[in-house]
Amino acid sequence: MRRIAHAGPVSPTMRAMTETSHTASASARTAPTEAAHDAWFDRLAARAQAGPSELSAVLAMASAGGDLVDFSGGFPDPGLYDTQLLGETAAKAIESRPEVALQYAPNYGLASLREVLRAEVSRTQAVVPGPDDLIVTSGGVDALTLICKAMLNPGDAVLVEAPSYLGAFSVFRSHDGVCVSMENDAHGLIPASIETAYAQARAQGAEPKVVYVIPDFQNPSGLRLDRERRREVVEISRRLGLLVLEDVAYRDLAFDGSYVDSLYELGPDVTVQVGTFSKTFTPGTRMGWAAGPATVIDAMAQAKTNTDQCAGALGQTILEAHITEGHYAASLPVLRSAYAARCQGLMDALDGALSSSAAWTVPAGGFFTWVDVPGVDTKALAALAIEEGVAFVPGAPFFADGRATSQLRMSFSRTPVSRMAEGAARLARAIERVR
Amino acid sequence: MRRIAHAGPVSPTMRAMTETSHTASASARTAPTEAAHDAWFDRLAARAQAGPSELSAVLAMASAGGDLVDFSGGFPDPGLYDTQLLGETAAKAIESRPEVALQYAPNYGLASLREVLRAEVSRTQAVVPGPDDLIVTSGGVDALTLICKAMLNPGDAVLVEAPSYLGAFSVFRSHDGVCVSMENDAHGLIPASIETAYAQARAQGAEPKVVYVIPDFQNPSGLRLDRERRREVVEISRRLGLLVLEDVAYRDLAFDGSYVDSLYELGPDVTVQVGTFSKTFTPGTRMGWAAGPATVIDAMAQAKTNTDQCAGALGQTILEAHITEGHYAASLPVLRSAYAARCQGLMDALDGALSSSAAWTVPAGGFFTWVDVPGVDTKALAALAIEEGVAFVPGAPFFADGRATSQLRMSFSRTPVSRMAEGAARLARAIERVR
Repeated sequence: MRRIAHAGPVSPTMRAMTETSHTASASARTAPTEAAHDAWFDRLAARAQAGPSELSAVLAMASAGGDLVDFSGGFPDPGLYDTQLLGETAAKAIESRPEVALQYAPNYGLASLREVLRAEVSRTQAVVPGPDDLIVTSGGVDALTLICKAMLNPGDAVLVEAPSYLGAFSVFRSHDGVCVSMENDAHGLIPASIETAYAQARAQGAEPKVVYVIPDFQNPSGLRLDRERRREVVEISRRLGLLVLEDVAYRDLAFDGSYVDSLYELGPDVTVQVGTFSKTFTPGTRMGWAAGPATVIDAMAQAKTNTDQCAGALGQTILEAHITEGHYAASLPVLRSAYAARCQGLMDALDGALSSSAAWTVPAGGFFTWVDVPGVDTKALAALAIEEGVAFVPGAPFFADGRATSQLRMSFSRTPVSRMAEGAARLARAIERVR
Repeated sequence: MRRIAHAGPVSPTMRAMTETSHTASASARTAPTEAAHDAWFDRLAARAQAGPSELSAVLAMASAGGDLVDFSGGFPDPGLYDTQLLGETAAKAIESRPEVALQYAPNYGLASLREVLRAEVSRTQAVVPGPDDLIVTSGGVDALTLICKAMLNPGDAVLVEAPSYLGAFSVFRSHDGVCVSMENDAHGLIPASIETAYAQARAQGAEPKVVYVIPDFQNPSGLRLDRERRREVVEISRRLGLLVLEDVAYRDLAFDGSYVDSLYELGPDVTVQVGTFSKTFTPGTRMGWAAGPATVIDAMAQAKTNTDQCAGALGQTILEAHITEGHYAASLPVLRSAYAARCQGLMDALDGALSSSAAWTVPAGGFFTWVDVPGVDTKALAALAIEEGVAFVPGAPFFADGRATSQLRMSFSRTPVSRMAEGAARLARAIERVR
């Protein structure tokens, strides 16, 4: 093992970094990480100097663990999977199709899986994506990334619900996109607010390109948009020349198995629908898809090659077998019934502990309820709640305009029903203390 | 199944799209893909309107198949894997660690795999990445994506070898980075050309941020940079405040198992090393890593959450088992010997067919040789070669400045030795024809 002495001239700006690097390499052959921090920080992209998101801080608190009742993350419950079946599926995929499962996949995804997914989309929607209208993605966030690369010039605007999925804001901003808030009410997105937000973006000098909507059991509100509003969203967007970006992460998880017409179904000419198997299959294989106008899907496929090259072929072959052998369809009633029971458990717990101090949505599917605690800043509440032993995500980061809010998100997807009364009681105590 | 009539006013720019969409939905419930093409094309990001790369066109030609002798793609050979072992490893990962393998992973990667990879990096290098100095990525291209998000403001410059990996140019450009060419000779990158390229970038008004180097069995040249040049690359970059981005995709594939000091080893304070398991394990799980100063790695980890959220946990658990159970180390001699034999086969074939008309590099590792056919435009040659039944990648796209070139890349990684004489003979015929 060699010790390297740095020689040659050193510029003033890099001096601190280099000197401490000598020290570090003299100690224990450990790379000089702390030392480099300050000098490299100034060289980072502007977007990277903002530091970690508020969500990261909250999730870090929650991961402290211990006796915590954790309502924070939007995670599925791997306890609901048939792991033996999945293990066999994976082994079979590798052994029977090694030249496919263990090789690079096409940027659009495996032809066989794309065909399966086109059929899967049309299973619940009165539309069949054409052969060039669907791409396999590495999960839902990757699909949003590809939309950004395909659609956004720096400074272009994405119109977003208020509240909406904070991870999506982060994707849009990481591509130097600007998020402009629309308006939501107790029934979800108010379609007319698309026009207001469009005008506001224009007034800011930002070109509005995309409307991002989660119509089914929305993250974070838990609400499902009704069919009439969906029609309006499509019509207004079409008139304004906006691409509708429909995120259907929770579409298959209505507790009663019902479906409302999708935005893609209502306007396949103006909508890219993005879906993920992270909620209904597993996040472990990073599998999702996007379906929409071929021009946009083709631009996403080109972007795929310069983002992560392709979705993992092993995951694709496993997912394909899981669907074609009927396991996906068979698993949905199991998942719906498990998440429905947890939702009911949380509703009962909130009724018991918070009926006088808060109000919340009653979801008909998905993972989330959205709780309003009037007069309380839920960011301050979150810290006290951790002390009491319960975690949730405060509402502010779900608003792109960073407004203060008395709302918060609770996820019921991974919490045992037997723990929910205790979790709600702890939340009630935290509310008492913050008031 | 419903048929949706589009109502409401239609703006002039969107009229064509909407009208043809009516026609399409009236025919067969197929989404109106062709129809939407033109109208959406104008709405795409500027970077997306460039269309597919030249490489896509070449690879599309090559995938025509038939009797083709294919030297085009940089693909590993899944025929060299122990698929039964891999199948068992996958099944065991799922069945023994479902709560890990089937769940979201942390943005940095699984803690257990990160520890394994830190040790793996130090196996051949006199440096141990600190606990915060390594992130698990979704393959090598993803690592480049994260570097872009961490380091590049729109218009910032990346200094690149000439020639270099064209996929990397595409990543840098997709983040609105500017590629500025350095200079290579028969021994690889000329270190002094870093300064020339730095000055040139500045003169163009682009802030130089990153130097991208593939020191081991470079793509496309097949050359390995000597230790003295590596020292100079690190020293010049340190003096100029540049981040060295070292791509070690082929580092483990020296035919004799040897290693030359890495740039990361020589300058851990100024280098981010990115590696992939796509060449030595499988591309099917999309597994790679990046090691470097903690400030940059942290920015990459934040970018990971808004790119694809995390590397796939299933792939991470499989890779971890593959390494810790000794299968990775055991597989390297097998891979080296197989690729060495193919390299020798191609050298013999070129000696037999092209010694009077071309010259080429003699690789000591990796997948590629770089062939010069004096006086011939290899882009024109590529089309004739396909007619003759042999495929390669012409050299022009490997130069960021788009210069014409008489060079071309041949990959020997997937071609049976028994086919190489025929492939070289076909190439010789194509050269005869083009001259």
